Amino acid sequence: MPSPAPRPAEFSAKKQSSSAEQLLDATASLLSEGSDLDVSFSDIAKRSGLNSALIKYYFGNKEGLFLRLLERDAKVEMDALNQLMAMDLPATQKLRIHIPGILNAFYKSPYLNRLIHHMIEYVDSPSNKRVVELYVKPMMEAYRTIIAQGVEEGSFRPVDPAMFYYSLVGACDYLFSGANIIHLIFDEPKLNEQLKQRYSTYIADLMLMGLRP
Amino acid sequence: MPSPAPRPAEFSAKKQSSSAEQLLDATASLLSEGSDLDVSFSDIAKRSGLNSALIKYYFGNKEGLFLRLLERDAKVEMDALNQLMAMDLPATQKLRIHIPGILNAFYKSPYLNRLIHHMIEYVDSPSNKRVVELYVKPMMEAYRTIIAQGVEEGSFRPVDPAMFYYSLVGACDYLFSGANIIHLIFDEPKLNEQLKQRYSTYIADLMLMGLRP
Repeated sequence: MPSPAPRPAEFSAKKQSSSAEQLLDATASLLSEGSDLDVSFSDIAKRSGLNSALIKYYFGNKEGLFLRLLERDAKVEMDALNQLMAMDLPATQKLRIHIPGILNAFYKSPYLNRLIHHMIEYVDSPSNKRVVELYVKPMMEAYRTIIAQGVEEGSFRPVDPAMFYYSLVGACDYLFSGANIIHLIFDEPKLNEQLKQRYSTYIADLMLMGLRP
Repeated sequence: MPSPAPRPAEFSAKKQSSSAEQLLDATASLLSEGSDLDVSFSDIAKRSGLNSALIKYYFGNKEGLFLRLLERDAKVEMDALNQLMAMDLPATQKLRIHIPGILNAFYKSPYLNRLIHHMIEYVDSPSNKRVVELYVKPMMEAYRTIIAQGVEEGSFRPVDPAMFYYSLVGACDYLFSGANIIHLIFDEPKLNEQLKQRYSTYIADLMLMGLRP
């Protein structure tokens, strides 16, 4: 007897999931090109080659689409942060790995920080709570832990983790949110892999020396 | 003979100038409340108590209005920077004065950095060139000078002034551009004078220690 053909339900689930991913990919790619969050359903449909009605079908509305995109990115980025935090390394070494990690995340998804702030704007929405749980709380918790560890190891002063959060995320994100003046400041026509790496080393040196007791 | 009454032309010039200032004040106040640059002529008219036709009369269009606002802010902020740079002080002391200066400028005009980047978006426009001349070039020049001075005085490593520019402006601006998560990170319900001062001290310490040879 030949092996049975896939059941319609399975086939359909697979196809659905792949279409949803394509829509998320198209949204991510459009958001990465712009400096705001103005992407229309028709732009997403065009970029993905799918019908725009599917966006409503899978994600309900734009807020649902954005939230799913942040969830997908969080899966990658915050898993990496949690793994790093669990490693048996000195706090200085953890920061040396984490800082290029942030810049790589923003390089891959330049809309990430912008989208996090946008989703938090709707204070009482379920999206707000979810984004806070996905990104803000774990990052703040990681910074609290890493600074306490560094203080104990004698490599950091006891700084306020909240101050550290704002200075680090702000300095990293500005290479992306402020990318349109890069050609005026750096000897580079625009943001590229090499500039991101140089900035990453600079920020890691600045923070590690700046946190010294 | 009694002293002559003001000539109509003089009176009219004074009145015009004061209306233009009122429109700029209203624009600044509306921009400070929002997190984008979406202010309408009718909002400005309402806030200023003047007719919206005057905006077109004085500034031509929104770009002209925004440019005039940046010029007015530059007069205050960049004059202060130039005065500081001309003072006979060590580089470390100049940074200790400059960093609270940036944070005070953003506290007073939280739209400032956002507006600079927006006006630079139109690459070949006269506004672009003007904003580059008003802000970007003088700041970059000041950072180049201050770092060279600090290196000579033995208080700074020879870092790339462009890296310094991005890390400092990015870290400072994020307290304002990222103000909507302050209540989640800091023990404060929202941005206030005291938090700005604490952040200012933290950033100055971080930068001065982080730049050490």
